[in-house]
Amino acid sequence: MYKVDLNADLGESFGAYTIGMDAEVLKYITSANVACGFHAGDPLVMQKTLALAKESSTRIGAHPGFPDLMGFGRRNMNISPAEAKAYIQYQLGALMAFAKAAGMKLQHVKPHGAFYNMAAVDEKLAIAICEGIYEVDPELIVLGLAGSKHIIAAEKVGLRAASEVFADRGYMNDGTLVPRKMPGAMIHDRQVAIERTVRMIKEGCVESIEGKIVPIKADSICVHGDNPDAIGFVKEIRERLLAEGIEVVSIEDVIGK
Amino acid sequence: MYKVDLNADLGESFGAYTIGMDAEVLKYITSANVACGFHAGDPLVMQKTLALAKESSTRIGAHPGFPDLMGFGRRNMNISPAEAKAYIQYQLGALMAFAKAAGMKLQHVKPHGAFYNMAAVDEKLAIAICEGIYEVDPELIVLGLAGSKHIIAAEKVGLRAASEVFADRGYMNDGTLVPRKMPGAMIHDRQVAIERTVRMIKEGCVESIEGKIVPIKADSICVHGDNPDAIGFVKEIRERLLAEGIEVVSIEDVIGK
Amino acid sequence: MYKVDLNADLGESFGAYTIGMDAEVLKYITSANVACGFHAGDPLVMQKTLALAKESSTRIGAHPGFPDLMGFGRRNMNISPAEAKAYIQYQLGALMAFAKAAGMKLQHVKPHGAFYNMAAVDEKLAIAICEGIYEVDPELIVLGLAGSKHIIAAEKVGLRAASEVFADRGYMNDGTLVPRKMPGAMIHDRQVAIERTVRMIKEGCVESIEGKIVPIKADSICVHGDNPDAIGFVKEIRERLLAEGIEVVSIEDVIGK
Amino acid sequence: MYKVDLNADLGESFGAYTIGMDAEVLKYITSANVACGFHAGDPLVMQKTLALAKESSTRIGAHPGFPDLMGFGRRNMNISPAEAKAYIQYQLGALMAFAKAAGMKLQHVKPHGAFYNMAAVDEKLAIAICEGIYEVDPELIVLGLAGSKHIIAAEKVGLRAASEVFADRGYMNDGTLVPRKMPGAMIHDRQVAIERTVRMIKEGCVESIEGKIVPIKADSICVHGDNPDAIGFVKEIRERLLAEGIEVVSIEDVIGK
Repeated sequence: MYKVDLNADLGESFGAYTIGMDAEVLKYITSANVACGFHAGDPLVMQKTLALAKESSTRIGAHPGFPDLMGFGRRNMNISPAEAKAYIQYQLGALMAFAKAAGMKLQHVKPHGAFYNMAAVDEKLAIAICEGIYEVDPELIVLGLAGSKHIIAAEKVGLRAASEVFADRGYMNDGTLVPRKMPGAMIHDRQVAIERTVRMIKEGCVESIEGKIVPIKADSICVHGDNPDAIGFVKEIRERLLAEGIEVVSIEDVIGK
Repeated sequence: MYKVDLNADLGESFGAYTIGMDAEVLKYITSANVACGFHAGDPLVMQKTLALAKESSTRIGAHPGFPDLMGFGRRNMNISPAEAKAYIQYQLGALMAFAKAAGMKLQHVKPHGAFYNMAAVDEKLAIAICEGIYEVDPELIVLGLAGSKHIIAAEKVGLRAASEVFADRGYMNDGTLVPRKMPGAMIHDRQVAIERTVRMIKEGCVESIEGKIVPIKADSICVHGDNPDAIGFVKEIRERLLAEGIEVVSIEDVIGK
Repeated sequence: MYKVDLNADLGESFGAYTIGMDAEVLKYITSANVACGFHAGDPLVMQKTLALAKESSTRIGAHPGFPDLMGFGRRNMNISPAEAKAYIQYQLGALMAFAKAAGMKLQHVKPHGAFYNMAAVDEKLAIAICEGIYEVDPELIVLGLAGSKHIIAAEKVGLRAASEVFADRGYMNDGTLVPRKMPGAMIHDRQVAIERTVRMIKEGCVESIEGKIVPIKADSICVHGDNPDAIGFVKEIRERLLAEGIEVVSIEDVIGK
Repeated sequence: MYKVDLNADLGESFGAYTIGMDAEVLKYITSANVACGFHAGDPLVMQKTLALAKESSTRIGAHPGFPDLMGFGRRNMNISPAEAKAYIQYQLGALMAFAKAAGMKLQHVKPHGAFYNMAAVDEKLAIAICEGIYEVDPELIVLGLAGSKHIIAAEKVGLRAASEVFADRGYMNDGTLVPRKMPGAMIHDRQVAIERTVRMIKEGCVESIEGKIVPIKADSICVHGDNPDAIGFVKEIRERLLAEGIEVVSIEDVIGK
């Protein structure tokens, strides 16, 4: 039986500012990455996001970012491994308090934006992130870019790792994502995107922009809930996966305990 | 046997900025209130502060403040009870992650500065703070101003409460502190301050600025570690307490489990 | 000839977060209050907001707030007059740099939210704000609550003052606004709101919630551009004012040089 | 006649946090770089720093940094040229307001830390910074690393540029600084540091770590006021420069109007 998780970033509102159709996207996803106050989210938002996730019985994870609200955590910051570890633990703990108060348990950790991208290629940073998680709760799953140093680091440190793939992104011959500035970075045709995703799950491979068949592990698919279009795509991909006989379940149900 | 705790605020450094002689004051105190990143402290500082406290086997507590680094959490902010509860849980959880990583356990929570002062007189705010703590860990002790609404709220919510007194502050007839702008707010003579403290512990009372003998509960004495003078005073008060046959132990050892 | 200004808060977006239909509301207003980065707005947003205002030839002013992005500057903060003055100058200067770069000139200053409300009733704070403005540019106009201490302070300090009224708010017998929690705080009927506004401009008075006719000076009307409904109201009130023979012009054109 | 400027970073305190012996170092330097609130400094600190500089008749400049207080602006951030320009204008304007209020005029702009280092090697970023300055005040002088892209950008944009050298740093064959992690990065012997500085001023060259004589322009020497030792060095270098017949004057007096 094929299985896959659908994950989306939630709780990215801040104070008077609202981002994301959280209640809508929660109908379709199986894992929610909750912002923890550094790049997005604030204490009230975190609390409300967990309440929403609980209502829809969606598993939750921490989505820690760089301390860069103005840049939404999307700008590379040259932080040290020690800083990375401390930033992860701080944000992870903050979310765990709200989870505790809500009678919930965290399932996973997925760094946000530039933090995620840097962890995919910088082994020292990735190890620091994973050690930070391990020291706080060794049962947590790391959700990282499929085939990246982040996944390797999780395994080295002794954490379970889940490999994330992108339905709407092109891949290079070496399994990395086509950089956003290059042609072929985005897959704009929804049907093509969905077919590629089904293949990643069923056959464990993806066709690169140069036409090579590249092996890839697809435990979880990244989807978005920013706007009605994005919600429409999540609904559609979910239905197609089910129609293809692929179970859509939480990360933990995909990779096992 | 008389018992009392000596508590001080620690971990108030931030980034390149240093405040406090933490390693020094840890030699004399029995409970450390660790800043949690809102009014002071940052993730690296929190981590280092716990390491220092562990080395000296000093019990630790969370010292959550208002989100006002520029004002060091000393300015009243008109936050709602819901915000107060969420701010407490966020900061408490962040510190708990570092405690978990260090193999330590939090003993207590003491709000900082304006948050502390507002909780002492605003029952709704105090209840919100205490509920926030209770939901995260009902074993935590609330450290609040002796005789204040904060103490009453802790008991209502079902948390253990410890009453804090100030060696160097004058008291009003109703047991509240003399406002800092009034004459008699500060006790400048160290010997007088120490004698008043001993009396609070042994006799459970203090002489108000109007000469009235006011009942007061003294579980913990607030001391400071900002400068060599303050450290000198902590050392002196500790020695005098011991000479008076008063045990200087952690909050939990004073109030019991 | 009757004259009045229509002012709205603009440039309240921040980083990835968007608030306000700035381009829409600019079609109808005559003065824009531009957020300066403390409670809302960021450097890029400030720059873009001035570009938009320039395109529509709308006069601009600084809209400085409390350093409380999480609370959108709506929470009272107990800052000192010296802090108030410095916060005003900092934010005012920041906006002036963008104005300089865009070849524009600031017309006015209107503090935001809690800063505005506190300045209306706290004379020391109001004086500090006005002195801060005067020292940077004595030609700037203070836009404050009609009949408030803020207006009196502006005049004392030597600045021109413009009195702001609210179409959709109830007034007390003493000319202050009905607090938001009281019944009668909001005027929900648009026609009533517009008629009251016309009366304020033409007759210089408003009926209080207790039925008393209260004198009021209406140099500028506060409107909003947050959502399509609000935009609709701005359009409607503007049309009705014009139909009543009231010129809708900038603050400076209302109060004179 | 030889001339050189001595510049130091000032106003780096923040809220309750103090860094730097500003009043002391002002006795010896001729140009002060004032932090503008992003990486250090706050509105009250900026105001006080200008008052101190005015008292000692020291010329002032803006010292804008990255929005990274936790990292003191020392961590590279991957900001866009448009963001760089807006961040420069925001901070520059903020300081100009305090200068206006104090009856002072800014002389120069020197970006801080990682912003300075990135501007030295990234031409697009350097151009954006210089355009930002030019649009606000084309009379301002850019203070940048001698021989860097920052200096070239200033000239391209039409701003006066002043070349900064470091007494206590080693230089590479190409005139860039020896990276801090390499041996030879720091010159620890004060006498050697001073002799090298005198040579840079009088002969326009410096010996690289590989023994090559490299041409260098020395309009201004960077000194520090963080601690008594640093102050001692500033005093000593100033005395030695004067003894060598080198005038110690402001940047503007070195490079001319």
